[in-house]
Amino acid sequence: MSAEANVGVVGLAAMGGSLARNLAHHGNKVAVFNRTYARTEKLMNEHGTEGEFYPAKTLEEFVDSLVKPRTAIIMVKAGEPTDAMINALADLMEPGDIIVDAGNAYFPDTIRREKEISARGLHFVGCGVSGGEEGALLGPSMMPGGSEESWKTLKPIFESIAAKAEGEPCVAHIGLNGAGHFVKMVHNGIEYSDMQLIAESYDLMRRGLGMTPAEIGDVFEEWNKTELDSYLIEITAEVLHQVDKKTGKPLVDLIVDHAGMKGTGTWTVQTALSLAVPVTGIAEAVFARGLSSEADLREEAAKQGFAGPNGELNLNSEEKKAFIEDIRQALYASKIVAYAQGFNEITTAAKEYGWDIDLAAVARIWRGGCIIRAKFLNRISEAFESGEANVSLLFAPYFKNAIETAEKSWRNVVAQAALNGLPTPAFASSLSYFDGLRSKRLPAALIQGQRDYFGAHTYQRVDQPGAFHTLWAEPGREEIEA
Amino acid sequence: MSAEANVGVVGLAAMGGSLARNLAHHGNKVAVFNRTYARTEKLMNEHGTEGEFYPAKTLEEFVDSLVKPRTAIIMVKAGEPTDAMINALADLMEPGDIIVDAGNAYFPDTIRREKEISARGLHFVGCGVSGGEEGALLGPSMMPGGSEESWKTLKPIFESIAAKAEGEPCVAHIGLNGAGHFVKMVHNGIEYSDMQLIAESYDLMRRGLGMTPAEIGDVFEEWNKTELDSYLIEITAEVLHQVDKKTGKPLVDLIVDHAGMKGTGTWTVQTALSLAVPVTGIAEAVFARGLSSEADLREEAAKQGFAGPNGELNLNSEEKKAFIEDIRQALYASKIVAYAQGFNEITTAAKEYGWDIDLAAVARIWRGGCIIRAKFLNRISEAFESGEANVSLLFAPYFKNAIETAEKSWRNVVAQAALNGLPTPAFASSLSYFDGLRSKRLPAALIQGQRDYFGAHTYQRVDQPGAFHTLWAEPGREEIEA
Repeated sequence: MSAEANVGVVGLAAMGGSLARNLAHHGNKVAVFNRTYARTEKLMNEHGTEGEFYPAKTLEEFVDSLVKPRTAIIMVKAGEPTDAMINALADLMEPGDIIVDAGNAYFPDTIRREKEISARGLHFVGCGVSGGEEGALLGPSMMPGGSEESWKTLKPIFESIAAKAEGEPCVAHIGLNGAGHFVKMVHNGIEYSDMQLIAESYDLMRRGLGMTPAEIGDVFEEWNKTELDSYLIEITAEVLHQVDKKTGKPLVDLIVDHAGMKGTGTWTVQTALSLAVPVTGIAEAVFARGLSSEADLREEAAKQGFAGPNGELNLNSEEKKAFIEDIRQALYASKIVAYAQGFNEITTAAKEYGWDIDLAAVARIWRGGCIIRAKFLNRISEAFESGEANVSLLFAPYFKNAIETAEKSWRNVVAQAALNGLPTPAFASSLSYFDGLRSKRLPAALIQGQRDYFGAHTYQRVDQPGAFHTLWAEPGREEIEA
Repeated sequence: MSAEANVGVVGLAAMGGSLARNLAHHGNKVAVFNRTYARTEKLMNEHGTEGEFYPAKTLEEFVDSLVKPRTAIIMVKAGEPTDAMINALADLMEPGDIIVDAGNAYFPDTIRREKEISARGLHFVGCGVSGGEEGALLGPSMMPGGSEESWKTLKPIFESIAAKAEGEPCVAHIGLNGAGHFVKMVHNGIEYSDMQLIAESYDLMRRGLGMTPAEIGDVFEEWNKTELDSYLIEITAEVLHQVDKKTGKPLVDLIVDHAGMKGTGTWTVQTALSLAVPVTGIAEAVFARGLSSEADLREEAAKQGFAGPNGELNLNSEEKKAFIEDIRQALYASKIVAYAQGFNEITTAAKEYGWDIDLAAVARIWRGGCIIRAKFLNRISEAFESGEANVSLLFAPYFKNAIETAEKSWRNVVAQAALNGLPTPAFASSLSYFDGLRSKRLPAALIQGQRDYFGAHTYQRVDQPGAFHTLWAEPGREEIEA
């Protein structure tokens, strides 16, 4: 068998199969391999005529069918199976060849793997791929890490299959080793917060204003014509309009309200904690899913019944209309805060791990293919390009202005929710972050005083340099230079 | 040299030296060793007459001076130095001997170490010790993990030196391997949230009500006579009353408002995320410290100046008095939520790691010696003892009632803070958690719909068992059993 394929895909389940077909649709010659050959055959039977495929029965055959430098994209289960496949491929490949892990790996694993594989003279590229099965088939947003050299080979291939946003392919080389998987992780964290903010908006309209899912769906349809224009707002409208065939009821009312999760949101928050970057919006979103799934706790709460308001705001139709606009503003402002926090996490990690990440490019490649794709990513991209968002997205005039416009509405929504018993963890937490940022003096000074009192941790003074400790237990309580 | 000491301390810095003296004060015969002998000599010169010490020049001498089963308490730097000392001791000790790590180890390290050391026939005990240097000297709260067998030897020794609360020693065997360090970690996490809640209360009075630090110190002094009676409230009053000698100004106004942290709060939240337990109060406290220390961000924010209210509530003296009581209620309710979340984290970890943890005992040993010592831990202990808090502390009648009493005030504080531009991340987040828990239906149902839409993650229905997937993109949008 002579080498003819310019790229190969290993692992032909839903995502891998779609990615292989996408590659073939765009003129690539695609070697395909799956541990059980039946799946390869199935793909060939159903889609083999869609392009040039080179099905391989063994991994050796697969590697032999690739032209050098060989490019193999792995799309197998995270963890052990991925490590096993990487090593099996590396054993068969030669220096200069490229192994791409397109699964949702945890970025420290990617850093470790890159180190191991590059020591063997091969390239290892951890590549975030967003957009689910449909994205993989029709155009995902792609976030490859790894070496500059590997990017030269991968660029035309990935650009051929990535989603297009305003004509530009949604793929860019993110940075060395784990940078791609890191950025994909933060993308997912932001996705969690976007979804939580939408959920809180829905809840406020549902329980606070007594609207039906269909009415709320109409509101989201309207909102999708504003700054909020995005995939998640669009599908929210569709989900809310969905009627259950069997019962005629709104489907959303029949869905069990326990939100699942798969780990990337959790990783985003855990990593932010290690980096000491506040990501309050994402954290509250992850915790809210956690609380929703605590069946025992919620059952007991329902049984015992806590006193408190029932959530109804009792507004007249004019007030209602104004409050819906308040919610929209609160959603937009909170969303900006969550994105600012997510980008801060990327900036801090880039320093920590030595990555040179172009944040404007990150915003650009998120405009298409991925779950958080949205119009306002154009504005984010511009803000980073101009340097206006160097310290934080919140300082770019466009976003500063947006938040200042939204501010009053945002405050009203958080206040009304608190008074009327509706949970708005992400709205409230984003507002607190914003007000913390606005504060010239924070009560953290008191915390430093407490820490010095019980733990002799020392403190700094605003009026002179040095570290100080107060002898709190001594008569006269002398302050000393520590 | 014949073996005479019943316990030994390795590492004689501030904490280790104090612990050794505490042991000697209570009739123990204490072997002491430090890597540099000068420190051992210093301890002997200054405190050698306070009890029976057996200073050792070498680790061999130290081990030889201990009666069997030998008990060696290590108090050295976390990480590498701790591992090195554990291994050096284990090489010299014999099966049945006990190594206690009394430092602030991360519990997975403790689990690993216990496995390694117990495989060699020795006992390894990770022991949380709270109370700082003063606690180590006069009576700390102690949280030992490790084997039941080692506890038989350690019990009389630890009970002799632990703090006493209402006559009972503040020490209990927490559970196997890492259980002690785990519970100490959560203790610290709760400490973070306690301090943040106090800081928010202070900020509301300072900026919201325009009170001076001394006036607010008086309020905390009053609060310390209520349900809030605790060490942290007590020292807060003292910190706020402290006047700077040089300037005559309140010291708190001269302290740089960047709160430091050392890692245990971060670990508590990261671990909770892995266990999928919401600990929103602790997380917001950690993030608030993080935000306070982001100098660049805060400087830029001050320079740019965000529009918005300045925090002043403009209340008359009667309203002011009422609002102060509202803040006290909000603090108490939020505190109960944070403790409930912390105990939930312990319960979940106990299941995950196979620990049999007596939560009532945990609450009891926190009543003295440690930073979060407080009267209301008696109520927590009773709630767990009676079984009323089996599912959550929030359901024990005493606490349910306390929260229901506080609820209106709590809502008012969060609403006023939001409207007037004061950050209350921990108050607001605890309230949202409470309202989430109270909610019969959560908007998590919408999130499940979204997840099924873009990722085919499936959902469950409230009216029939099974997993379902809607073919969102298909005409007619059929729902199918997944």
